[in-house]
Amino acid sequence: MVKLAIDVMGGDFAPLAIIDGVKLALRKFDDLEFVLFGDEEIIKKHLLGNPRITIVHAPEKIDMGEKDPIGEIRRNRNTSLVKAFQAVKNKEVDGAVTAGPTQGTIAAAHLIIRRIPGMKRVALCPILPNLGGKHRLLLDVGANLELRSEHLLQIAQYATIFSREVWGIAKPIVGLMNIGTEPGKGRELEKETFELMQKDENITFIGNIEGKELFSTPCDILITDGFTGNMIMKTSEGVAKAVGVFFKQEISKSFRAKMGYLFLKPVFKNFKKQLSPDEVGGAHLFGVDGVVVKAHGSSDAYAFSNAIKQARNVVLGNVIEKMKNIIGEQGEVASE
Amino acid sequence: MVKLAIDVMGGDFAPLAIIDGVKLALRKFDDLEFVLFGDEEIIKKHLLGNPRITIVHAPEKIDMGEKDPIGEIRRNRNTSLVKAFQAVKNKEVDGAVTAGPTQGTIAAAHLIIRRIPGMKRVALCPILPNLGGKHRLLLDVGANLELRSEHLLQIAQYATIFSREVWGIAKPIVGLMNIGTEPGKGRELEKETFELMQKDENITFIGNIEGKELFSTPCDILITDGFTGNMIMKTSEGVAKAVGVFFKQEISKSFRAKMGYLFLKPVFKNFKKQLSPDEVGGAHLFGVDGVVVKAHGSSDAYAFSNAIKQARNVVLGNVIEKMKNIIGEQGEVASE
Repeated sequence: MVKLAIDVMGGDFAPLAIIDGVKLALRKFDDLEFVLFGDEEIIKKHLLGNPRITIVHAPEKIDMGEKDPIGEIRRNRNTSLVKAFQAVKNKEVDGAVTAGPTQGTIAAAHLIIRRIPGMKRVALCPILPNLGGKHRLLLDVGANLELRSEHLLQIAQYATIFSREVWGIAKPIVGLMNIGTEPGKGRELEKETFELMQKDENITFIGNIEGKELFSTPCDILITDGFTGNMIMKTSEGVAKAVGVFFKQEISKSFRAKMGYLFLKPVFKNFKKQLSPDEVGGAHLFGVDGVVVKAHGSSDAYAFSNAIKQARNVVLGNVIEKMKNIIGEQGEVASE
Repeated sequence: MVKLAIDVMGGDFAPLAIIDGVKLALRKFDDLEFVLFGDEEIIKKHLLGNPRITIVHAPEKIDMGEKDPIGEIRRNRNTSLVKAFQAVKNKEVDGAVTAGPTQGTIAAAHLIIRRIPGMKRVALCPILPNLGGKHRLLLDVGANLELRSEHLLQIAQYATIFSREVWGIAKPIVGLMNIGTEPGKGRELEKETFELMQKDENITFIGNIEGKELFSTPCDILITDGFTGNMIMKTSEGVAKAVGVFFKQEISKSFRAKMGYLFLKPVFKNFKKQLSPDEVGGAHLFGVDGVVVKAHGSSDAYAFSNAIKQARNVVLGNVIEKMKNIIGEQGEVASE
């Protein structure tokens, strides 16, 4: 069995969307057990007794608009998020899923669960929409705004284990986001990282990847610093949204176009579905000593159930133990 | 009259596409004169004698795939690009247009035309496709991979003058690309730049802009460092391309979808046109002491004629003189 802590109070549509997401996951997976951290009364009202469910009363939450989530986590250890992460830390569960605020989640993971010994940085790692025929990991997208080359190498190693164990890709291909494909391109960071990655035997490095190849590259894993990753991720969202708005406006302009839309409706629906973050569920937090999946703040029940599925797969893939083995081989012990 | 130097030999489809682009521009604008730098024999074969045309024989060119464009420019002063830029330097022309390699163009502009005294960096500034109802400037996209806050402020001032004089926008709105909208977000670079921009009276600063707002923000000008700008620009290209591929594949799958496509063909065509870099023509090189427009390497005649139009408008807008006034007011003289 895989046992997951759920932050019932985090997210724009919490607690109901979260509770319903748990219900969906209970139906989908026989091997899941849950410890729900949230308002016991509300949870009991919406969830019938189930032997695979434990409830821990934790009605306080970190506000989605909290300006100082890190301070809030230090000050208040009674929130549902902090309690869920404490369960991970104490090995009472195999992992945790939250739709709470991103920076709060990262801070709480750092302060409570802590990094894997020898892991130098954590990385927030979304799965890119399957627009070009396959899913890809992009990391870091904002856990650290600045990273050094050895950090980028480590997160590439981590993502490689993830792709192998969770997606079953024997040799996941790693690319480095850069302004040109030739070696020697980029800032000092990219030049140094290129050198390091080329020598590393734990990853299959293909070289530099430009932004325009984001959805056509053979890579399974795309590596960059957290500032750039955030820009790439959100620019993709922005362009996709702008394309949607464009078509909507153009189609409304003529009868002919409206007719065409009726015929093409399934294609447009499919397009929307492919790009929806709900299909993926959430972003992984790589590098902390426990499985953490951060679902989108706006997750509905379906999206949250997909985030649960992601956490389940990482637990079953034994990803963290395997990363510890690589770190052990490298003789790394100091967590700087 | 506006007199422009044309690098006839630069670009994937040079010299013919370039010559044809000049012909188009001659027809469109009565106030343009050209000095064409390229292979005289070829030019004469394709261009009838015209009082508004002067030809300077310069058959050598910088290869589009040149690995060391900067070295090539230092070594060989006989290429069409270098000779065209020398004409700018010597004030024989009001500006220059080239479809040659980007890094070569930037290097040649630095080495031959040189920066405006007091201007600390140059910036490569494309005009974003008019996807969200208006055109926007994004800069820097790759002239400098790393920039300091005072550099970002200067290029924002420059872009403000451009938008005012060329587009007629009385108070162009400036945004800073960042990972969140609140003040205090981002790296040290963004925090410092935010402070500087907020205080500056030469620009209208609206605050931080996230990638997802790229095509919906009210901003006319989006400021970032050259590495990030390149990533944003090329990611946009990549997503738009992936969307195109997606629709093509989906439409080919069913008869119904093919029918829908026939009805929607004008919309798809319009979509392609809106996103095409040909409509814009090229990227400006802001900060050098002469008007330089870098057309896309793959420019056809139409795209190149639009790049010419851009250069014409910057000359007529007297943009460089106006930037010199701002620099003068700031008491800046040292070009560091």
